[in-house]
Amino acid sequence: MIGAEVVVRSLHGCGVDLCLANPGTSEMHFLSALGAAPGLRPVLVLQENVATGAADGYARIAGRPAATLLHLGPGLANGLSNLHNAARALSPVVNIVGDHATGHRRLDAPLTSDIRALAETVSVSTRCVMPGRGAGAETAAAVADSLGPVPGVATLLLPADAAWSEDESAPGLPQRGPAVTTDINPAGLVEALRRPGAVLLLGHGALRGAGLEAAGRVARATGAALVAQTTNPVVDRGAGRVTVERLPFAPDAARARLAGAPVIVLAGARAPVAFFAYPGKPGRLTAPGTTIIEYFAPECDAVAPLEALAEACGADGDTARNPAVLPGRPVGALDAAKLGALLARHLPEGTILVDEAMTNGVPIAAATAGAAPHRWCQNMGGSIGSGAPLATGCALAEPAAPVVSIIGDGSAMYTIQALWTQSREGLNVKTIILANRAYRILQAEVAKLDPARRTNAMDEMLRIDAPEMDFVAMAQGMGVPGIRVADCDGLDRALGRAFAEPGPALIEVTL
Amino acid sequence: MIGAEVVVRSLHGCGVDLCLANPGTSEMHFLSALGAAPGLRPVLVLQENVATGAADGYARIAGRPAATLLHLGPGLANGLSNLHNAARALSPVVNIVGDHATGHRRLDAPLTSDIRALAETVSVSTRCVMPGRGAGAETAAAVADSLGPVPGVATLLLPADAAWSEDESAPGLPQRGPAVTTDINPAGLVEALRRPGAVLLLGHGALRGAGLEAAGRVARATGAALVAQTTNPVVDRGAGRVTVERLPFAPDAARARLAGAPVIVLAGARAPVAFFAYPGKPGRLTAPGTTIIEYFAPECDAVAPLEALAEACGADGDTARNPAVLPGRPVGALDAAKLGALLARHLPEGTILVDEAMTNGVPIAAATAGAAPHRWCQNMGGSIGSGAPLATGCALAEPAAPVVSIIGDGSAMYTIQALWTQSREGLNVKTIILANRAYRILQAEVAKLDPARRTNAMDEMLRIDAPEMDFVAMAQGMGVPGIRVADCDGLDRALGRAFAEPGPALIEVTL
Repeated sequence: MIGAEVVVRSLHGCGVDLCLANPGTSEMHFLSALGAAPGLRPVLVLQENVATGAADGYARIAGRPAATLLHLGPGLANGLSNLHNAARALSPVVNIVGDHATGHRRLDAPLTSDIRALAETVSVSTRCVMPGRGAGAETAAAVADSLGPVPGVATLLLPADAAWSEDESAPGLPQRGPAVTTDINPAGLVEALRRPGAVLLLGHGALRGAGLEAAGRVARATGAALVAQTTNPVVDRGAGRVTVERLPFAPDAARARLAGAPVIVLAGARAPVAFFAYPGKPGRLTAPGTTIIEYFAPECDAVAPLEALAEACGADGDTARNPAVLPGRPVGALDAAKLGALLARHLPEGTILVDEAMTNGVPIAAATAGAAPHRWCQNMGGSIGSGAPLATGCALAEPAAPVVSIIGDGSAMYTIQALWTQSREGLNVKTIILANRAYRILQAEVAKLDPARRTNAMDEMLRIDAPEMDFVAMAQGMGVPGIRVADCDGLDRALGRAFAEPGPALIEVTL
Repeated sequence: MIGAEVVVRSLHGCGVDLCLANPGTSEMHFLSALGAAPGLRPVLVLQENVATGAADGYARIAGRPAATLLHLGPGLANGLSNLHNAARALSPVVNIVGDHATGHRRLDAPLTSDIRALAETVSVSTRCVMPGRGAGAETAAAVADSLGPVPGVATLLLPADAAWSEDESAPGLPQRGPAVTTDINPAGLVEALRRPGAVLLLGHGALRGAGLEAAGRVARATGAALVAQTTNPVVDRGAGRVTVERLPFAPDAARARLAGAPVIVLAGARAPVAFFAYPGKPGRLTAPGTTIIEYFAPECDAVAPLEALAEACGADGDTARNPAVLPGRPVGALDAAKLGALLARHLPEGTILVDEAMTNGVPIAAATAGAAPHRWCQNMGGSIGSGAPLATGCALAEPAAPVVSIIGDGSAMYTIQALWTQSREGLNVKTIILANRAYRILQAEVAKLDPARRTNAMDEMLRIDAPEMDFVAMAQGMGVPGIRVADCDGLDRALGRAFAEPGPALIEVTL
């Protein structure tokens, strides 16, 4: 058996069933082995950041890693920013990068670069399969690395000669390291959470299923506020779900929200810091006098510690839940709140909502809080261009669920190529492009500058209105049917049609 | 003056007049300074690999660096693969990357990553402006680094607080280090070049202007064959230009071409190696018995050593030149040779031809050898997705020249976002998409595999025909008028119309 076959069999044996690929010459033997493997589905993408972002989305919904297949250093480079996002989401990804044959590297052929240096910036581990020995064990170790103790991107370099050479090693077997747990006794937190203004800050798994339920009981029993960190990989929300505030993205607002908290208990969340620094303002969003206690880390399973905390609190009643209240049917020209209202009214139960709505995200989130129960996926690393790839991966993980991908027009253009894969695979992704024809989030930043520093040329650089992009045409060019809407009636009809049948669709919303 | 203003003034003072930007929050003060600067033109791109590839194209044609403006590590990551190509082209680029404020980095906010590690994989130098001191000198040094001794990517990290803080340093002044020269005496090469079968292998500047003319005289005087390395940043070619063979991309063909050479003299070229390794085949393309002499390096100015060599040869006559012979007007269904013939018949003198034609490149090159004199730009690092950005940069460097960008459909989809910038800036780029609906170059690689290793699933992964992409629709969506043609008459008319008026246009050619 050649090395490529050992790698593929090991991946499959370790539970990997999807490979998001953009291969090149050095990956031909791997592609051959992949094509011959039952149970390991290859999915082609046109640009690597679609592969890596889709692997992130797949991991969030499936709870297990997909493999990527990238071509040498430049292919890895093209996928790095969504690997950055995946790493921040703690999404397991087995990131397979083809390399030149080991003996070819020293010739410094045109595509040669320092792949390891690139990989290490985003990876929990960077391994290399060497020709003729141990492809099975190395692959199994990479899968295990991706899963923990801290889940993330495990890069596996596969030199072409390691792929094509005979390798007698047995396919690797699944391994699992020790899980991360907490050594904080929950009984010690109860008094802190009972202090007026106390915050239980939830992140990652604490916003899902039984963990979120337990957090709700803790809040009810102690009076602590339940606050979600600004972004999270998946949040269970909608009607009947435990009510959770979201910490604002805007640093002044976030600081104001947390200013009065005597104590913040971190449950799967990180101590909140501003996305960006501003002159004369602190980077931490918490007041100097606030006590911060990390109960458990983001990578820790959230259910056991939150249930233990609920028990320590003597919590046995119910908790505050989102009422099943849909907004009224809006009319007239569209804005984000009206869009959110219409979306809430149409949203099928079980939808996966991918949010790269940027400045429009807050009103849309508010409007959909009481919609049918759904999952909410956010950008974790702040690198925009994650929305369309994430949605692609979510749909691959759960083909039966509708996926709604809400993306700002500026953001959408980083990875618009994802639409083609959505069409090719018939994925049930409904893309909503928020076409305000500007980098609105940067316009908001400009507004914070000293007015003397604003110039027309600067304003011009934050507008993307000339030429006006036509996302319906672009979608059509990649096989996705689209429609442009400018008012509530139009969006109402478009959403009705989009959810009425499976498969990809795009709605460009003029805002 | 704040640091951002010092950086901008220093760039301009050192001869940088273009900034290809995709900014984010941490770059707002730089953008403000840029907007206020006369003579430093900001150009907005929708994805960072367009900025970096355009900077490569600009440098090739203008002969001086453009600046980029990228947002933190993920923005740099998105532009890395075309920086890799630029580095291989020895194109000077001042690669400006905004970073978090220095005090914010340790908070590990979502967008934090190891920017320096990423930058160092492609850069001749990686500098960082520190707040309040020396922005002028650091910027001037970065510009100088980009220019030599070995030209390339000089990365300048600009933390947000370095941009917004007062910096009393004077704007930096142009610096220029010593030029790279050769210490080989040309007289010692004459006998070698007179040996039957000798090859003078040309690369980089040796394929342009006076250097190429001198090389032609050397060939005539010595009988040595003039061969161009497979890819080069800019080649002067067309009717009346010195005739030069091109070393084939296919390694077997290249090896066969060089097999009989007793000696190869490298003039701005590197010793030829295969792009990729293959089982049981050597990576070097030269025979073990061939003597290889490096006369001068790719980064060396080519004119002086080639003129000295011509003088040493006693060359005083003319040389073999491409005859001004246009192919006959083809008819019927299109293929690459017919496309090349039609292009040759329409090509305006002075055109810049950007070649990412992949498998179709050889017949197109053959057909255009006798066309009106033009410049030919190729992908130097092998990372596909360079064509549309390169063409964008070439057009920014020389707005009056027609730029023809010939791109395979697979390649085009890595950086299709460049079309929007071409439209926004009204650039004179005629994009020809070669729509064969496949990664044809990889299909050729599959054909080299043991037939037992071919599978249907593998073949499926190399086809991009379902859904069939519509490049005319995509171009329209980004403001570029387009047309699809499938036969010679259609292409003939489309080329006529495209060259008749300035501005961007796209022709999708069904092959």
